[in-house]
Amino acid sequence: MQDLIPSLVRKSDSKIVLVVLDGLGGVRTSSRGTELSEANTPNLDRMAAEGMSGVHTVVGPAITPGSGAGHMALFGYDPVKYLLGRGALSAAGVAFDLRAGDVAARVNFCTLDKDGRVIDRRAGRIPTEENIRLCKILRESVKMEGDVEFFLETERDHRGLLVLRGMGLSADLKDTDPGVIGITPNPPIARSNEAAGTAIIVERFLDQVRLILAEEQANFMLLRGFDTLRPIEPFALRYLLRARGTASYPMYRGLSKIVGMDVPPETAGWEETVEDLKASWDDYDYFFLHQKPTDSAGEDGDYERKIAAIEQVDRTIPEILALNPGVVCVTGDHSTPAAFMRHSWHPVPFLMWGENVGVDLVDRFDEEAARLGGFGHQYAKDLMAFMLAATMRLGTYGA
Amino acid sequence: MQDLIPSLVRKSDSKIVLVVLDGLGGVRTSSRGTELSEANTPNLDRMAAEGMSGVHTVVGPAITPGSGAGHMALFGYDPVKYLLGRGALSAAGVAFDLRAGDVAARVNFCTLDKDGRVIDRRAGRIPTEENIRLCKILRESVKMEGDVEFFLETERDHRGLLVLRGMGLSADLKDTDPGVIGITPNPPIARSNEAAGTAIIVERFLDQVRLILAEEQANFMLLRGFDTLRPIEPFALRYLLRARGTASYPMYRGLSKIVGMDVPPETAGWEETVEDLKASWDDYDYFFLHQKPTDSAGEDGDYERKIAAIEQVDRTIPEILALNPGVVCVTGDHSTPAAFMRHSWHPVPFLMWGENVGVDLVDRFDEEAARLGGFGHQYAKDLMAFMLAATMRLGTYGA
Repeated sequence: MQDLIPSLVRKSDSKIVLVVLDGLGGVRTSSRGTELSEANTPNLDRMAAEGMSGVHTVVGPAITPGSGAGHMALFGYDPVKYLLGRGALSAAGVAFDLRAGDVAARVNFCTLDKDGRVIDRRAGRIPTEENIRLCKILRESVKMEGDVEFFLETERDHRGLLVLRGMGLSADLKDTDPGVIGITPNPPIARSNEAAGTAIIVERFLDQVRLILAEEQANFMLLRGFDTLRPIEPFALRYLLRARGTASYPMYRGLSKIVGMDVPPETAGWEETVEDLKASWDDYDYFFLHQKPTDSAGEDGDYERKIAAIEQVDRTIPEILALNPGVVCVTGDHSTPAAFMRHSWHPVPFLMWGENVGVDLVDRFDEEAARLGGFGHQYAKDLMAFMLAATMRLGTYGA
Repeated sequence: MQDLIPSLVRKSDSKIVLVVLDGLGGVRTSSRGTELSEANTPNLDRMAAEGMSGVHTVVGPAITPGSGAGHMALFGYDPVKYLLGRGALSAAGVAFDLRAGDVAARVNFCTLDKDGRVIDRRAGRIPTEENIRLCKILRESVKMEGDVEFFLETERDHRGLLVLRGMGLSADLKDTDPGVIGITPNPPIARSNEAAGTAIIVERFLDQVRLILAEEQANFMLLRGFDTLRPIEPFALRYLLRARGTASYPMYRGLSKIVGMDVPPETAGWEETVEDLKASWDDYDYFFLHQKPTDSAGEDGDYERKIAAIEQVDRTIPEILALNPGVVCVTGDHSTPAAFMRHSWHPVPFLMWGENVGVDLVDRFDEEAARLGGFGHQYAKDLMAFMLAATMRLGTYGA
């Protein structure tokens, strides 16, 4: 069904704005409403009244999505078919420009005992600054053979990204992370003949890492999720859209890049994200705006901070609508209920507002109201098609 | 899942009536309700109160269906798997009895300048009478070689249907319609070796057309959507039903024929359609009744005319129920909101009424009420199975 959409796409001048409040969805408890139901959101409520609401399941029933899957779905890519591997997501997370043929892996700095056994898979969760220092040392000291280059990027705490670039590399390697402590890390083992050369390259790389970091607390690294960039049809081809993705966190800029959006530098926060929208309005057809603090607050179980992050977006809605978009969709990439302090499977409310959307009887924006909305219960991956339809970009199916 | 249904079908004496109000669905706006919500429909409301309601998505989320796709879905055939090409639909549109092996194409009479370039792809939208005159001339004058026959039928205005009948023909030909003006029509080009012979036959046909029509305003024809009849399992085999399709427009009679229904001559309108139902009641198990003006009025943006067309059907409901059907389903093949003046993707309300349907709390028939009904949100292609179940025609799955 999904594959029908690109075949029906045509051009239009009407603009699309997707506002993602990360981890927006919440759950009621016996003592509290959801964050969205408790937030004071006069502007979002007005959009709900003038438009149509619904809830979306992000991946499938009962499945708790990661951020990568949630955003791929909102961008209209089936998150099961277009699952991003850990390597590609790590690259997205540091906005690394992963290229075809590159092999990427998640790095965990770790601590080995004197016999080479893993005693801490996170090296005592070293601070990010320490991670940066170690990466710098390794970049300067490790020597690669032949034409192979390596890139080593800090993510956060003990986590990082390793990318190998060169001819004929393969990502068909087993993790070196043994997953438990008390044993030695696994060597990089090729899962196919084609990866045998790459296994040797990784082994020689790790031998040097072990020597160079010998005196550090984080005296080695574990590699997981060897991955390559899988071909993804970019927005411009798939939807005939000039798309821009604006976010204050590298991960979401990286995800935007993966689907071919133009990505400005990191914004300082939501207000600056909206400023970027206004400044670039004439140059794009589709805008993805990302608000991160809703998710972080939800993970911290902090109702008030999550509510404040929702209200911050609400206050800027008039500025967005003043630009005269063809359709605005406001939603989340998954639920992060403050009541649970983690991502959850719960359906995420969404509203769509625009001249060709339609109007239902829902007049406020929250989980309970959205469930009764005109969209009913949808899958996240189909929201993009509704936005295309609302901007007259989808032709009729069948004669 | 769909393929399970035919394997569970058994016979029953209980009768099925499907009432299709073409383009029934509407959308609310800030100033008006939907056509169905504004219509005075005491009988349909009573059926909703005594039965169960729901909404259906016709093809897929955000996809605006054509009439062919909408009806195939309501007849229980997956509209993606059973997509009808333009040629087969044109044949349906004039109720042409397309046979296996026939090659059908949509004809547009056009105007060429003296250098053979297309200057009007619709020949000034010649009146239907002119189209009839030109088809008659061509039928009398064009000579085919060998055993190939041709059929040329007027649709409306500048549009028509060409069918070639003979051994070894192939529809694997490119359109001759260049899609733009200012250039010459494309020759009929074979897309495969198998179609090479057919391409020559079409070329010789078109050479004669050009000579014969040289002095006319519509001095040539463009061909699009070469197509054959794809095998479709007929109603009688698929559902063990003797089925009758009654409509006042050729297109819907043609669609009924495609799935193997018996089709009486065009009716003059809804009242006569209901008369046909009553007259043929004893001879069939399944009746498809089609009301066209709901769609035409929606496309004209004429709320009052669409409402009147709905109310016209409502008034005849007591006559239909008096026949003691096992189940009656009332719905549309897609939405044609008067607010939008075109087909749209919006889910279509439906109600089902009958002894084995069940009852929900919905007590009126409109989009908002139906959304809360016992059927919830379904796909159009599954409604047929609910009608079979409601007439005790579906066995239990699994022991």
